[in-house]
Amino acid sequence: ATVAMPAVVRAQPQTKWRLTSSFPKSLDTIYGGAEVLANSVREATDGQFDIQVFAAGEIVPGLQALDAVSNNTVEMCHTCSYYYVGKDPTFAIATSIPFGLNARQQNSWLLEGGGNQILDEFFATFNVKGLVAGNTGAQMGGWFRKEVKSPEDFKGLKMRIAGFAGRVMAKLGAVPQQIAGGDIYPALERGTIDAAEWVGPYDDEKLGFYRVAPYYYYPGWWEGGPSIHAFVNKAKWEELPKHYQAALRAGAALANETMLAKYDALNPGALKKLYGLGTKVLPYSAEILEASFKAAEEVYTEVCAENANFKKVYDQWKPFRSQEAFWFQYPDGTFDRFQAYLQQKKMI
Amino acid sequence: ATVAMPAVVRAQPQTKWRLTSSFPKSLDTIYGGAEVLANSVREATDGQFDIQVFAAGEIVPGLQALDAVSNNTVEMCHTCSYYYVGKDPTFAIATSIPFGLNARQQNSWLLEGGGNQILDEFFATFNVKGLVAGNTGAQMGGWFRKEVKSPEDFKGLKMRIAGFAGRVMAKLGAVPQQIAGGDIYPALERGTIDAAEWVGPYDDEKLGFYRVAPYYYYPGWWEGGPSIHAFVNKAKWEELPKHYQAALRAGAALANETMLAKYDALNPGALKKLYGLGTKVLPYSAEILEASFKAAEEVYTEVCAENANFKKVYDQWKPFRSQEAFWFQYPDGTFDRFQAYLQQKKMI
Repeated sequence: ATVAMPAVVRAQPQTKWRLTSSFPKSLDTIYGGAEVLANSVREATDGQFDIQVFAAGEIVPGLQALDAVSNNTVEMCHTCSYYYVGKDPTFAIATSIPFGLNARQQNSWLLEGGGNQILDEFFATFNVKGLVAGNTGAQMGGWFRKEVKSPEDFKGLKMRIAGFAGRVMAKLGAVPQQIAGGDIYPALERGTIDAAEWVGPYDDEKLGFYRVAPYYYYPGWWEGGPSIHAFVNKAKWEELPKHYQAALRAGAALANETMLAKYDALNPGALKKLYGLGTKVLPYSAEILEASFKAAEEVYTEVCAENANFKKVYDQWKPFRSQEAFWFQYPDGTFDRFQAYLQQKKMI
Repeated sequence: ATVAMPAVVRAQPQTKWRLTSSFPKSLDTIYGGAEVLANSVREATDGQFDIQVFAAGEIVPGLQALDAVSNNTVEMCHTCSYYYVGKDPTFAIATSIPFGLNARQQNSWLLEGGGNQILDEFFATFNVKGLVAGNTGAQMGGWFRKEVKSPEDFKGLKMRIAGFAGRVMAKLGAVPQQIAGGDIYPALERGTIDAAEWVGPYDDEKLGFYRVAPYYYYPGWWEGGPSIHAFVNKAKWEELPKHYQAALRAGAALANETMLAKYDALNPGALKKLYGLGTKVLPYSAEILEASFKAAEEVYTEVCAENANFKKVYDQWKPFRSQEAFWFQYPDGTFDRFQAYLQQKKMI
């Protein structure tokens, strides 16, 4: 069945790129996504397409990764699109928006629901091409110094929370704060802030928040399944030989599935450890979730009125969310719920 | 930042392989997984590693795909590992076993929970190397001519259901039947069988079961997140240059995420269409799920006693299921449940 053929001598252009990550090496799961991608591309091209990965701050600060690609300081980056909502709120939808999609729905929208196409038109105006290259799964809802039982408890609450979700929180009366990862712990300890959201148990446990803010809420309704993107400078993407583009696309897929698989494998043990350390793990009340949803809807209405890019993507995205919310109640939702029941009854 | 380098002339071995799929072309979503894989590999190697995809029956029948790879009739196949439980029940765990893992948990176990490693030792005894290359998401629980309300309704019920799950169904008193896809419809129509499971709305609607068996149950508790595998002849895998192995690995990841994204994008519309055609879509009762779980546990005890391979993999897998069942109740489970609530209230 195998047709053995002689080796063909072909020209392989040697290409060396730099990738700037928005993440420190200590967040091995999310930082590691870029390494999975780069290793896959290097191996699949027999070392000819060599992407060197730099941690946040080594070339540019973490939150300037997109700019560095846009202006061709580096050829590519690994980052969260929603870090750039200050430039345009449309960047938020590519990662995750409040009460949006879970991880599977997010992949489905991007890959098969028209998401990547509509976003690429938008990304092109920033001179970049986007590739999905990671997901964390639904995140936790943050660490609080005191319990929050009703929407009123958010009034005046100073919370470290990212851009778009911060605007929703502000509708509840919270005061959103932008604080870099390393500065969250002292701010919580001193009481400069009352609450902070980060990622999930595996990443959060490393930062020690449980010592100064014992209430750990879920779910992070602003991040049901956030994508991590690789952005490539558009001109550099177009110059690439087709087979290097294919190697990058496949490497991004490997990074996407590996990152989520890793979070899912590591988070359960970290959550159990946090329980053991005395963390009080609590669900947001239905009342808080409903008030937050209402606030998010108000923000969407406002942003759609302010920004045509956002409206265009949001209008395409919204019916997709509806159909997925419908479908996931059938085999997936009921399978997961029965699994949860068996676990609660200690039957599995 | 870019280091431009001269093209290097390198030897690229031209390799032509054949892949036999277990699926007909009409099941475009699952069959398409092999094409996604083959196209990715061909493109990433600039056409030098060319895998030609054949539908079920073109080279060997669908259920002999593994044999054809094992004996090197073809270099690789795209199939469900659990089709081969007749050779060894351990093949079932690689795909999905009753009350097992959902799609994300399954990827996590295989990629980051030791699943691929322990399975590869087993697969090697059949002369193959396994690569995860697809997932359908949780499947539906099958089409029934009459309602099933309690475990008693399964007594004497003739149901078309695959190998391992059939053994569990038999504990409830059902009579499992092995029937090829194309023969299910006439068997249901004539009443030769009372029920049949297939995949989910998108695939099932094409076969028209709704016309002859109007009760459509969920979830398919025997398939919470079944993987589709690419198997490669082990000697052929080892002969491959390392960069072709890397291109195959990454192409399999792309196939894995693409297939699930496609099912998730297409199933909602198909389910709505089935509702419109008069299908009665019903959840299995808690009583049926509990009796089925008990039956599954009995089968696991029996198979572990009969087969050391199964026991070895099952014992490694079981604590992973426990930890995932625990973890998925936190941000992911609650996020999904609130999304379902919003959909039911027509708020999204």
